[in-house]
Order: sequence, then C-alpha cells, then structure tokens
Amino acid sequence: MGTAETLPRNEEGIAAALGVLKQQFGEAFHTGQSMREQHGHTTTWIETQAPDAVIFAKSTDEVSAIVKVCATHKVPVIAYGTGTSLEGHVNAPAGGVCVDLTEMNAIKAVHAEDLDCVIQPGVTREQLNTHLRDQGLFFPIDPGANASLGGMASTRASGTNAVRYGTMKDNILALEVVMPSGEVIRTGTRAKKSSAGYDLTRLMIGSEGTLGIITEITLKLQGIPEAMSSARCSFETIDAACQAVMATIQYGIPVARIELLDSLAVKAANAYSKLDLPEQHLLLLEFHGSEAGVAAQSEMFGQIAEEFGGSGFEWTQKAEDRTKLWQARHDMYWASLALRPGAQGVSTDVCVPISRLAECVTAAKERADELGLISTVVGHVGDGNFHMLPLVNMDDADELARAQGYVSWLNDLAISMGGTCTGEHGIGQGKRPYLRKELGAAVDVMAAIKAAIDPDGIMNPGKIL
Amino acid sequence: MGTAETLPRNEEGIAAALGVLKQQFGEAFHTGQSMREQHGHTTTWIETQAPDAVIFAKSTDEVSAIVKVCATHKVPVIAYGTGTSLEGHVNAPAGGVCVDLTEMNAIKAVHAEDLDCVIQPGVTREQLNTHLRDQGLFFPIDPGANASLGGMASTRASGTNAVRYGTMKDNILALEVVMPSGEVIRTGTRAKKSSAGYDLTRLMIGSEGTLGIITEITLKLQGIPEAMSSARCSFETIDAACQAVMATIQYGIPVARIELLDSLAVKAANAYSKLDLPEQHLLLLEFHGSEAGVAAQSEMFGQIAEEFGGSGFEWTQKAEDRTKLWQARHDMYWASLALRPGAQGVSTDVCVPISRLAECVTAAKERADELGLISTVVGHVGDGNFHMLPLVNMDDADELARAQGYVSWLNDLAISMGGTCTGEHGIGQGKRPYLRKELGAAVDVMAAIKAAIDPDGIMNPGKIL
Repeated sequence: MGTAETLPRNEEGIAAALGVLKQQFGEAFHTGQSMREQHGHTTTWIETQAPDAVIFAKSTDEVSAIVKVCATHKVPVIAYGTGTSLEGHVNAPAGGVCVDLTEMNAIKAVHAEDLDCVIQPGVTREQLNTHLRDQGLFFPIDPGANASLGGMASTRASGTNAVRYGTMKDNILALEVVMPSGEVIRTGTRAKKSSAGYDLTRLMIGSEGTLGIITEITLKLQGIPEAMSSARCSFETIDAACQAVMATIQYGIPVARIELLDSLAVKAANAYSKLDLPEQHLLLLEFHGSEAGVAAQSEMFGQIAEEFGGSGFEWTQKAEDRTKLWQARHDMYWASLALRPGAQGVSTDVCVPISRLAECVTAAKERADELGLISTVVGHVGDGNFHMLPLVNMDDADELARAQGYVSWLNDLAISMGGTCTGEHGIGQGKRPYLRKELGAAVDVMAAIKAAIDPDGIMNPGKIL
Repeated sequence: MGTAETLPRNEEGIAAALGVLKQQFGEAFHTGQSMREQHGHTTTWIETQAPDAVIFAKSTDEVSAIVKVCATHKVPVIAYGTGTSLEGHVNAPAGGVCVDLTEMNAIKAVHAEDLDCVIQPGVTREQLNTHLRDQGLFFPIDPGANASLGGMASTRASGTNAVRYGTMKDNILALEVVMPSGEVIRTGTRAKKSSAGYDLTRLMIGSEGTLGIITEITLKLQGIPEAMSSARCSFETIDAACQAVMATIQYGIPVARIELLDSLAVKAANAYSKLDLPEQHLLLLEFHGSEAGVAAQSEMFGQIAEEFGGSGFEWTQKAEDRTKLWQARHDMYWASLALRPGAQGVSTDVCVPISRLAECVTAAKERADELGLISTVVGHVGDGNFHMLPLVNMDDADELARAQGYVSWLNDLAISMGGTCTGEHGIGQGKRPYLRKELGAAVDVMAAIKAAIDPDGIMNPGKIL
C-alpha cells in the first residue's frame, strides 16, 4: 500500500460527536472495524484510513443533522457513495464521521419533456439508466464503474462518452448541498441556462466533498439515439492509433466514444473477458445518430483508420456485439490487475491537448518500459485523456518508488504540454503535490474559498488542498 | 432614466489613487466628463453612474498595476469592454477607476489542430470570427451585440446559438485573471477536461468583474459546418409558435438557432430592417451539419411547424438571405426602440424549463397588455429564454412604475416555474432584488466567497450582491 498523510485528530470532539450521533441515529450508526475500514477503502493503491464512525443517512435532513453535530464539535465529515474513487478521496486522515449516502437513492422526478431529472446522490449510473430506458432517455456520463451520481458530481467525473456529451460539469443543472454549517442551499434552477450570480453549481462539482455534501442533483438527460454503432480497428504502433484519433477529432466526426487500448491492455482484455481481439493497439469507437448518420460516421472513420495503417476495421449495430466490447472496456481495470496477480495498480490520469496526444502516450509508454514497469495504456483519447496503470508489487520498495517517480514524471510531462494532472479522477490525496505545479497561485484562491466556506476545515479534510 | 443606488465614496482614497495613476499612465489616463460618462453608459434604461477616471490598459501588467494602486487606496475598479451590458454592469455607484480593455484586443494564438485559441479580453466576437474564417473555424456564442469576449465571459453570455453550442461557461477552457490584490492567476490549462481542484474558470465566468478582471481567455472553437440553412415560419398565436418550439426540442432536432419574434417584433423588424415578413408571430431557425443533414432537419421542422398550424414555411441555404434575416434579428433591440421614438426599453431576461415556455410567454404578453405596456417579445426559445422589452416614456413616472412592477412580476413568475430571473444578461444592478428570491441562502455563500477573495470590496462594487 502507498502511505497516506495523517492529520491531527480532535479526540475530544470526535468522542463528543460520536456520543450524540449514536443517540440520534441508533441502528444507522456504525463503529465496527470492518464497516469503518470498508468506508475508507476504495479502488486505489493508497492505504486505507478508516473513519471513526459510519452513518447511513436517509434524507437531506439527516445529512444536515450529522453535519451540524460535527460542526459543533469540529469533527471531520466525509461523504461516501460507492467507493470507486481512485485517489484516496474517502480516506479519513484525521478520523471523523463517514456519511454513507447509498440509501439516498430515490429518483425523485423525471421531466421527460424538459430532458431533466431530479435524483438523490446515492442513485448509481446504471440504476438511473435502467429507470430511464422505457422513456427513451439516458444519462450519458459513464466513468466505467457503476458509481453513484453524487460521487461522480463530486469528482467532476467523465469517462468514455465525454468526447460527445461533456463531463459532469456540463450535465448538471442544479444541486442541493448541505453546507459545513449544516445549512441547506440550492445552487440553481431547472432553467437550461442562467446568469444569476456566481456559478455555485460548478464550484461544488469537482470539490470532492470539501465544501459541502451534495444531497440532490438535477441532471440533464439525452434522448436515446435512433441508432448506435460500434467500430474497432487495430494498429501496429501506438503512434498510428493516436494519429488516427487526432485526425478523427480534427475532421469533426461527432464520435460518441473513441477509446484506446494498447496491445498489453488488449491481451489483458482477451484473457479476462474471453475475447479474441488481435493483440495490437486497438481503437474502440461508438457512434450515435440516425441509421444513415452512424453508417456514414463509421465509414468515415474507417477511411481515416486505413490512412494511418489500421487493420481489421469492423463496425456493427448489433447490440449484443456492442455490449460485449464495451463491457470488456469497462472491466479493463480488473483485467489489467489480473495480468500480475498480487500486484496493485498505481492509477494515473493525465489529459493533454489532442495535438500532443501521440507524443505524450508514446513517451509515457517508453518511460514505463525504461523503468521496468509493467503498465497497460487505456484512454478516452478523443479528449486527450489517458491512463497508465503500473502494476506494482507493493512489497518491493524499490519498485514502488519507481512507480511513484513515474507518476510524478508523467504529471509533469502533461503539465509541460499544456495539459492537466487529472482529466477525471480528481485530486483527492494522491494528486495534491501536482495541483500547484499545474495552477500555481490559483491554488491560494481555492484555499481562500475553502477557508471562507468551511472555516473549521471539517469537510473531507486532507483532500485537494 | 431608472435610478440606481449610490454607495459611499472613499474620497480620500480616490484622490490618492487618481494622483498615482495619472503619473503612471499619462495619456492613457482620462478624467474628462464625456469620457467618464461614456464609460458608465450602457445599453440600458438604468441611469449612468460615471467613474472618476478611465484608463486604457494595454497589457495584463498594466491591469495588475492599476488594481494594485486601487487596492492600496481601497478604491473601486470597474472593467469595461464594449458597454453593451443591460443591467448597469459598468456603473460606478461608489466612483472609482474604469479599466477600458478595448486596446487589449490581440488574438494571441489559434491552435486549429486543438480547436482552441488564446485571446485578450477586448477582442470582439466579430473580430474573432473574421480572423478565424480562413481556417474554417468559428466561435459560436453570439449574444447579438458585437460584444467583447471578456465582457461575454464576465456576464456568462449566450444568445442565439446557445441551444446548440451552450453558453460562455461551456466554451472557455481557461482564464488569466488579475485578482483584487493585483496578483495574476491562471484558472486552467488547454486540456479539454480536468478534475484539478475547484472550478475557478466557471467561478470567474459570470462573476461580472466582482472577483477579478479577466485579462486572457482560452476559448474552444468549432469547425465551420459543411452546410448551414435557415428556415422561417409564421404562426397565428404565440402559443402555437411556442408549442412548435417545444416539439422541435423534444423531438431532438439539433437546431443551431431557434428564435421567436412576436407579431409586434416582426412589425418592428419590417420597418427597421426593410423586410416584408408576414406580421404574425415568427420562428427563425438555423441548422448546421452536412448538406443532407441540414436538408433533413429543415424538413423535419417544417412538418412540426405544419402540425402546429404554421404557415409560410421557407428554408434556404443561400448565404445572402440567411444574413439578411439574422441581421434583422440582431438589430431587434434598435428596431423595437424605433417603434416608439423617445422611449427607453426596459429589458427583461427570464428563462424557464421548456415545458413552461408557452405558458410563460403567453402570460407575459397578456400581463403587458393589461398594464398598457407596449412590448415586443423576442427569445432564444429553444433554451426557454425570452425577453420582453416594455417601451417606456421615462418622463411618465406612473408608466415607469408599471414597467418596473411588470419586470418584478415576470421574474417572480419565471422563478415560480422553476426558472431563472436571468438567462444571459446577468444580475448587475438591475436584477439584484431577484437573486435571493431565486437562490435563497445560496446568496450568502456567494457573499462569503466575495468577502474572501475581495475583502475590501473594490471589484465592481454594487453588482450581483
């Protein structure tokens, strides 16, 4: 496990708050070790820092009540969705109370005529889309994991569909948020656009629970396209695959998804998901539109792929074939881990201007090889976003140090190319050293906002700043 | 003229700051009355509150130097672009220094391969699009006026194309901002997406110069579509026109523009722009896509329009015809004023969920009639956004009071329908009473942010909060 910084604990406050909350919440209040550890544990190589208690909240009022008690006693409060974050977001480095929001999973309203819906934060992506399907609607953002939408809002998540539909910041109209005082605010309305004051909706999206706890979300929805097709194409070199992506985007083909898997990732997917893809570098695409539109898009991409030496180009509208390929893509994290049993994946998440994509991916792969690190490459490459995943034996201190040095080097490289140290995972604990490298004095402005909104620093301490 | 609140002046500080700035800026420093008044004056019915001095800044360093002097002496600083805002945004209710940014109008870089560009804030929309045309690119946001892009960012502007391309918040990657201390920050990178900390880019967009002065903007660009077509269709009732809009949006036709002009607005346009449109309620549309795509979209809309009793449906790809129609739409503010020479237009700007559009527009029109107010209706109705423009004889106190009561009533109505008191104009001075009605305690959070970032309240005081 990678170590995580601990912060000073307010033992007296924690004891007092736990006493009050135990009384108030009875059976919804938990202090058992396994429950606590499970709530500090996420899909990450960073060590678990368990909270002192876990409370399953059932309503905004309950979240507000918990935060008020914690505010009184200056005790940390950490919101928890599905625990699929990757940078230690739900760790409790100063202890405190974890608010589990999974039982706040009501879909409160679907306004089909306005293409929006109102949900509680514990609703997951798959739950929502299952609910919407009969109405011909869907919510496009898809980070892979079946994450809660509150968590996705909190990390400004995106994933495979973002190249077409944007990220969480582009698909939320309004939030209800419990502030660090316990007060409940609404950040917007159901209007499609607004110029009414500071954009608190966007400020809260991506704030990782450090400014408040999201208790309700008004989401934009999309009509399910008349037709969808998937395509795939293999390339001998990573550079050729990236060049094909750049050309596709620059040509303006409105791809819904364009994903890169390097040959090692393809090998892992073949083994884990029982596929027989050619073990070359692979682009997986999806097109949304009319029957004629998706056919035209698929064929235009086919021509571009051919120009860059792609082979095995295939496209299909068959739902079954599409689902199988995308399921394999979603299982890539687990498929990668299975390449080296016992190893942990050290996740990375850089995003660069598309013109630098080929150069950045190629350099990242060469450097990993030089350092003797085994790593797949997968990426939402239409946005210039990709992930290396060095598979590290955590008992080998030297290997871990090399992997950490590599992450640092890769973040610096992306920043030097005009990119970011995190396209979608967020800062959490793991990316804090890089935030200032990327944004300099802007981080002081973030700190001033944090201090103004949460003067006692009780909301998810030790994250982002 | 409508009156505007004055705020206490820091006479001593203003005198001291002006003394220093005059020395520092020489010929770029102005205190002549007409220059000062021109810089408080905008396209608005709110009275002019002139600043004490106007400085034409030539660089970020100069803006920073001005802000530093004003910070030292606790003197207001107001950024000025083209003066086309509508709610008293550039007024100086406590006096102070106006920073005119029109000379900071360099297009610093166009990255065609990444579909982005880097510009100074004084670049106007038309200037940018003229510059981009040869590269097959355009910037889609179009509020009508040839506004500066810094001003458009500051008010979170949108306009006719927003239904397809979003608002300023969706089309900016990063900003350079001079903060109230004079320090310069960068809020983002050229990466297409990022989860790196609080979204300061979106916080600054729409903050109307109250948190800092935008000195550089990295904008997203679009490829000029292969084909564009315009369509128009007339309706006997406003309700029928709105129902056709709602059906068009709900059907998912990706219109680039869908604008409503009521019969009075059409009459005004005919007179002002020498057109001979049928004097019924009119929808004006634009479609972007492939040749086949825009033809299909135009025809699909034609069918919907027919269902709702539309008549005179026509569509064209001829650039000349398209330009003439859209120029008339852009001139609507002046065309409306010409309906009643000597009157001022009291602008409004509500935005409601599309399902409430017909009801809201119909009620707004009926109420104006009841109050004896002469008003056109124009709207970016695909987003549920529309503007009434009561034409008021400002010497008639009773008529002005009725118009002000009407604005208040309309904002309340929009808010009660789940909408907003401003879809795109911003709060400025004029909409301040409605912000709390719309967002309640969230306004306190905005105030806390303002106090944290600008503790002396020198940035554009008396606006938003």
